[in-house]
Amino acid sequence: MFVRNAWYVAAWGTELDDGLVARRICDEAIVLFRTNGRAWAIEDRCCHRAAPLRLGQVIPTGVQCGYHGLVFDGSGRCVMIPGQDTIPDNVRVRSYPVVEQDQMIWIWMGEAEVADANLIPRFPYHDDAKNWPHKRKLLQVKAHYMLIVDNLMDFTHLAYVHQKNFGGDPEGHVVAPIQVVDRTLRGVRFTRWINDRPPPPTILNAVPFKGNIDRWQDVEFIAPAAIVQKSGSVDAGTGGRDADCSQGGFQARLFHGITPETENSSLYFWSIGNGHRTDDPSATETLFQEIAGAFEEDRVILEAEQASLSESGEGGLINVKSDRTRLIARHVVDLMLQAESGERKLAIA
Amino acid sequence: MFVRNAWYVAAWGTELDDGLVARRICDEAIVLFRTNGRAWAIEDRCCHRAAPLRLGQVIPTGVQCGYHGLVFDGSGRCVMIPGQDTIPDNVRVRSYPVVEQDQMIWIWMGEAEVADANLIPRFPYHDDAKNWPHKRKLLQVKAHYMLIVDNLMDFTHLAYVHQKNFGGDPEGHVVAPIQVVDRTLRGVRFTRWINDRPPPPTILNAVPFKGNIDRWQDVEFIAPAAIVQKSGSVDAGTGGRDADCSQGGFQARLFHGITPETENSSLYFWSIGNGHRTDDPSATETLFQEIAGAFEEDRVILEAEQASLSESGEGGLINVKSDRTRLIARHVVDLMLQAESGERKLAIA
Amino acid sequence: MFVRNAWYVAAWGTELDDGLVARRICDEAIVLFRTNGRAWAIEDRCCHRAAPLRLGQVIPTGVQCGYHGLVFDGSGRCVMIPGQDTIPDNVRVRSYPVVEQDQMIWIWMGEAEVADANLIPRFPYHDDAKNWPHKRKLLQVKAHYMLIVDNLMDFTHLAYVHQKNFGGDPEGHVVAPIQVVDRTLRGVRFTRWINDRPPPPTILNAVPFKGNIDRWQDVEFIAPAAIVQKSGSVDAGTGGRDADCSQGGFQARLFHGITPETENSSLYFWSIGNGHRTDDPSATETLFQEIAGAFEEDRVILEAEQASLSESGEGGLINVKSDRTRLIARHVVDLMLQAESGERKLAIA
Repeated sequence: MFVRNAWYVAAWGTELDDGLVARRICDEAIVLFRTNGRAWAIEDRCCHRAAPLRLGQVIPTGVQCGYHGLVFDGSGRCVMIPGQDTIPDNVRVRSYPVVEQDQMIWIWMGEAEVADANLIPRFPYHDDAKNWPHKRKLLQVKAHYMLIVDNLMDFTHLAYVHQKNFGGDPEGHVVAPIQVVDRTLRGVRFTRWINDRPPPPTILNAVPFKGNIDRWQDVEFIAPAAIVQKSGSVDAGTGGRDADCSQGGFQARLFHGITPETENSSLYFWSIGNGHRTDDPSATETLFQEIAGAFEEDRVILEAEQASLSESGEGGLINVKSDRTRLIARHVVDLMLQAESGERKLAIA
Repeated sequence: MFVRNAWYVAAWGTELDDGLVARRICDEAIVLFRTNGRAWAIEDRCCHRAAPLRLGQVIPTGVQCGYHGLVFDGSGRCVMIPGQDTIPDNVRVRSYPVVEQDQMIWIWMGEAEVADANLIPRFPYHDDAKNWPHKRKLLQVKAHYMLIVDNLMDFTHLAYVHQKNFGGDPEGHVVAPIQVVDRTLRGVRFTRWINDRPPPPTILNAVPFKGNIDRWQDVEFIAPAAIVQKSGSVDAGTGGRDADCSQGGFQARLFHGITPETENSSLYFWSIGNGHRTDDPSATETLFQEIAGAFEEDRVILEAEQASLSESGEGGLINVKSDRTRLIARHVVDLMLQAESGERKLAIA
Repeated sequence: MFVRNAWYVAAWGTELDDGLVARRICDEAIVLFRTNGRAWAIEDRCCHRAAPLRLGQVIPTGVQCGYHGLVFDGSGRCVMIPGQDTIPDNVRVRSYPVVEQDQMIWIWMGEAEVADANLIPRFPYHDDAKNWPHKRKLLQVKAHYMLIVDNLMDFTHLAYVHQKNFGGDPEGHVVAPIQVVDRTLRGVRFTRWINDRPPPPTILNAVPFKGNIDRWQDVEFIAPAAIVQKSGSVDAGTGGRDADCSQGGFQARLFHGITPETENSSLYFWSIGNGHRTDDPSATETLFQEIAGAFEEDRVILEAEQASLSESGEGGLINVKSDRTRLIARHVVDLMLQAESGERKLAIA
């Protein structure tokens, strides 16, 4: 069960530069492509003999099927049948609303008439290469997308899953107060501080702090599937979040676009914008590699968690104190699901 | 659902020279072997502890199970139980009618009493190595066997799937008239001409034509699962199908034996008999390699088509003009299926 | 369907020396570990978010989950929740009775209150390295555990499956009388003699006999899943089982612990204690390697048998003379299953 009246990341914009991109989203097979500078998404199944269109090619008028040569435009309409002069109106495949913004291809999986581009989460750092040089990755995780959201809503896992990179200091993570947890219009936001504690290996790799640091994370979940995260660190007691980190602190902006692929797998689009030593490409690269390693640690535990849940369900599970934010996020998504299954015309935002 | 009262290719004759051959046909596990010069097919499951007989070995009296040594002859009767003097009559496994003809092992999957060897499709070229030197291959295709038949009943796919070998000239394929489509007693036959067009890469590789060619394909489908194809090319305007191709034209005889393995996979036995430069083994080898490459292209698209149909069925699919012959072939097979499920004693031919 | 009120081998004792061991037993996911010198087994699923505990680590107080750091002791009770002061009583996972004996970890999968350590099969040779130097292995076999028991209850298969190592002499195996078959209190025992026959390759590898040998196997099945086997050989006519084999004969003690993993797979713990040339480690190693090769032959046929049974069931199978002991073993296990499904309080021994 997926929220369908929602925008999901379907691809990085640059992926469409080389032709067709095939994706499974909300368990539907889709091909993405660009013609005349505009991005499109249509069903990945020719309506002639069901051959996947991903085996075809992009031509100026649309996508040509690789089996018998039928051509479909971005609206899903068939515009050419080899050897046949007329094309009946019913020769078409499904199309999906698509918007290209912030270097990402966003897709709307629900009713086209209520697709509102203003609801798309923003990540302006992608277009600010000077101040926020970034690098990004698509990771397939064989787990329901809400397990990834869960993971990102409870940072106590850093102390155990990421001990060797972002964790480092179990005690610090456990005693860290969540200073603010705010229900937002479309999700939940929390700000977390760890003050005057030793820096974890990854942050020390990025910036050679001499002693303890003040460290913060500001994380906003925009339901059902996007998270914008701001993280930073400075020498303990030197100004915290308000400090100018170009002067020796650490700053990062992370985007997490978590797109349901199937009930048991997700497409995890993540991007790291680097705000320290912004004129040194190796600073961005090093940070990217550290995070990629950490998210691989998440992937291992999330896939094991999914396998466990697939086998034995949620029976007997209990919540603990650190689940608070996660439960709010789950609640918001549940409301969206209820709105869709019941009174579908309710506003989703 | 398979047509059972029918002959299918189970193996190339030479395969039995080296001992047991195990095959799954119409979703039944079978072992094939030869004793005293005669080919046999029996159930691949010992009736003692269900061990597959394919793990045993051929001995003069039959197949000996590799677990506890029971021996079954070609009729399926147990002829030896180690350590036991008497063998009850019920100790037997199923056997299948088998005929070895044209260097192929044919098997009848239905009622033994109506198995008529006269119904076996013929391909005499296998035994005419002088005029038709040949080479053959068994290709597993993870698709329902009728998808392979579909593929061979509509040659417009050559322009898209095989553009780099047998296609080459999309325009030529699309405008080519199917000159004759005949319903036959046991299937359908079509003859296709492409006149005065540039030769595709594969034919040019075989024969260095200087200019345009006249090219033809004569394809007979013998339901439910055999296709005999005659193809040729000559210099445009020099006599067409009646030309003596040993004088510089191109000639080929193809056999396609498409045996259902499971509902979603097939054993595709194909053979190419070469009729040009018949005294040069490299001519046959080159042609074989080109066709093997082309059929691999078919395999990729057919398996993707099967996956798509397995997921979303036939719903919403439409037929186009070039489907005509394919639909006749489907109709003939449907009649055979109806005959089997209803009045089973109806003649199948 | 598994017998649950029974002891199964869960691990070799030494496996717990290096930390957690994860096993699936009777289709339940379990982690085994040792704290303060005592072995424990608990459910491999954290009761917080279902993460498998096998991804965590052993600490002095128990197992710490690798996701959010909860700690469970050997009784399954949660003894630490990071960031939370109180731990409700219901925060626990299932635990299983465990006994470490004869260098094996035994687990009881049924009702804890009837777990009686006196019922655990003994194999004292593991603790007698001087007279019975041994080597052991865990082999996963993708077959129901009773197929492995079947295999070990009918040694006529040696002539066919193990012809090149322990078989060697089909005629000898088939004519060998089973001299004694005894129903025991908890299973069945058979003693088998093959007198005055040529030694098979493996035994000849171990001891360079000059001529024919007298060979015996004494095999006790302790239902549902343990077999203790004593085997030996001496020069034909020189005293048989009563001979002192340190003087030139061959002696072995085998333990077979066959633990159901799922309905279609088993954990086969086996061990070989060597009683000839006991002061030469290479004698034990050679014997171990020969047996490992033979059990690999069993694995191949057992997995093929399982696949065949999974597809077509037991329908049409017949029993032969050599099935006698196997059928008794099956009967004993059936009685245990009936006792569990019906009057569960019946004594199981």
